[in-house]
Amino acid sequence: MLQPPLIGDTPAEDPDRLLAYMEDCRGRVVDEIREIVPRDARAGGLLYELMLDYPMRGGKALRPALCIATCRALGGHLESVLRSSAVLELYHNAFLIHDDVEDGSDLRRNERTLHQLHGVPIAVNVGDGMLALTMEPLLENIELVGLGRALRILRVVARMARESAEGQMMELDWVRRADWSPTDRAYLRMVYKKTCWYTFLAPVLVGGIAAGARDPELAVLARCVTPLGIAFQIQDDVLNLVGEASRYGKEIDGDLWEGKHTLLLIHAIRQASPAARREALRILGRSRPCEVNRQDRKSADVKSREDVAFLRDLVLRSGGVDHARVVARRHADRARRSFEAIGGSLPGSVHRDFLEGLVDFVVARDR
Amino acid sequence: MLQPPLIGDTPAEDPDRLLAYMEDCRGRVVDEIREIVPRDARAGGLLYELMLDYPMRGGKALRPALCIATCRALGGHLESVLRSSAVLELYHNAFLIHDDVEDGSDLRRNERTLHQLHGVPIAVNVGDGMLALTMEPLLENIELVGLGRALRILRVVARMARESAEGQMMELDWVRRADWSPTDRAYLRMVYKKTCWYTFLAPVLVGGIAAGARDPELAVLARCVTPLGIAFQIQDDVLNLVGEASRYGKEIDGDLWEGKHTLLLIHAIRQASPAARREALRILGRSRPCEVNRQDRKSADVKSREDVAFLRDLVLRSGGVDHARVVARRHADRARRSFEAIGGSLPGSVHRDFLEGLVDFVVARDR
Repeated sequence: MLQPPLIGDTPAEDPDRLLAYMEDCRGRVVDEIREIVPRDARAGGLLYELMLDYPMRGGKALRPALCIATCRALGGHLESVLRSSAVLELYHNAFLIHDDVEDGSDLRRNERTLHQLHGVPIAVNVGDGMLALTMEPLLENIELVGLGRALRILRVVARMARESAEGQMMELDWVRRADWSPTDRAYLRMVYKKTCWYTFLAPVLVGGIAAGARDPELAVLARCVTPLGIAFQIQDDVLNLVGEASRYGKEIDGDLWEGKHTLLLIHAIRQASPAARREALRILGRSRPCEVNRQDRKSADVKSREDVAFLRDLVLRSGGVDHARVVARRHADRARRSFEAIGGSLPGSVHRDFLEGLVDFVVARDR
Repeated sequence: MLQPPLIGDTPAEDPDRLLAYMEDCRGRVVDEIREIVPRDARAGGLLYELMLDYPMRGGKALRPALCIATCRALGGHLESVLRSSAVLELYHNAFLIHDDVEDGSDLRRNERTLHQLHGVPIAVNVGDGMLALTMEPLLENIELVGLGRALRILRVVARMARESAEGQMMELDWVRRADWSPTDRAYLRMVYKKTCWYTFLAPVLVGGIAAGARDPELAVLARCVTPLGIAFQIQDDVLNLVGEASRYGKEIDGDLWEGKHTLLLIHAIRQASPAARREALRILGRSRPCEVNRQDRKSADVKSREDVAFLRDLVLRSGGVDHARVVARRHADRARRSFEAIGGSLPGSVHRDFLEGLVDFVVARDR
């Protein structure tokens, strides 16, 4: 399984091959999500229809691919991990819906966000329904992987959900208070919680547990993917500024409009002249226009296009993009060294190749 | 345990005694919630501080009291059920935070709602964090009640979360489409999902499982509390219109401002003259003013005080309050007959008395 489209003699680092692996996983995981989401219209037709919206829009399926590849690279079967990987993807999509509400985002995967289409109340409830729907399949895991592994997977998912809420809160609190004192280090801690846990750590830990890995092996895997998760988020921040909208799928400059803390902007503010810094902080204290769900901002005043252009220029002139790329590369290199140290212990397979190839993909990706 | 303040010879139906029982449970459950919510400021100080806001505001603690009383009336120990009952209360408070966002409510337990105080983004994330935090204690339940019971409790909680999202969606969808075709029957189905599951069914099932009850006993308990849960929600709708704000703790007429479907208003619209019905539907198609999170309403137009006074008058003149009270009483009577049928099989205890006394409390309460 998972082999027909993936066998070939292209080198492992070929990004097309990585994308094909993810695309293959995506197909299987979307089918699995369709199994998990009830079809009974009487039970909540609209609720379940909207739960499928984001998952059906595409997306890289990075998280389930990572989960499946880890399990299979360690010798586990696809059947042991497919359901759990679908649950992680369901979680991811629930987070995306709530994140889009929290950030007041307009675009997700090149289409309007769920709250833009159906209003905040329905979007919040669809996210809650998706979170609710993750519990039963994780309990049914007992039949698939046995009691011990099923309980360990449940604990990882519980930790992941908690870490994500903590990271999200760090960021929301900075934005709300227009607090630009956080350093690169504080940013990295926020990213570890907000992105790394649910995008890299949880998928790898769940995949590892499904394959029967013990705690010391899981610790090694965690050491590999933690820096990779950080590099991934930094690259996301870079793409938000200099990416190509049609491939990236989100709004270019969205982070600037939202006043998000990125390594780029933290760097730019640190490097700025006192006058430019004052002006940047003034702009960052303003809301984005039409941002309906930020009643609590200190200032009633909204950002203009000129404000965002000022911030963009400040980042570009400060070398913020290069700074971010250097930090991302450093984390990716750390991940590569950790992978190289364990790579030899894993038998050769397309799954191992995928994990290794991911290091380059994360920092080279344009989507 | 749970006895010192509760032993006495006042009759079981004395509402003060019921309130004292709930108050006693509340104290213990709040202590338990404080144990569950991390205190580590570094991990997410503000997140965990805000999680305690709603639970600390008071509230009846009906759900944990029902859970504890069921377990103890069936001969179970407080220690077997306290943690689970605290998890149900945490869930309840997470739902309240998200409900308040979804309904655009201003007041909760006589204070401003969480999103009014801290903005929608933070309120949504605090709710998510609380949902995340319920998983670990339910897994730790294995040590308290054994594996089999812990897994059954997890399944009940998963079902509860799903039913609540389904019920909430039915209501949000009616509101969004300003659809007033739903009948009393559709309303009762919505309430069964939205209120009954998490306020009555889940607490009683979890309490029963913690005490070691088997499926047939649980089915009997479910038969008792299902009509009670429906009576509870109808009484809540009545209080929203004719209650005393200081005791009720929510905004009087809030349901009319929000255009919520209640038995009172469904009845009033059904009874209205064609002209009055047209006017009512026109008003119900309008948003509430300053309602920031309903971008999707058909009409941009907002309700005035006169509009709400019109609806209020329509309900009062149609006999909607009496109609609702009759239906609530009929459900409460059904619950009473079910309780009487099983009451004899339970040994006499303050816990059994609490369960029996609840039937009258639900329809007589003013808070």
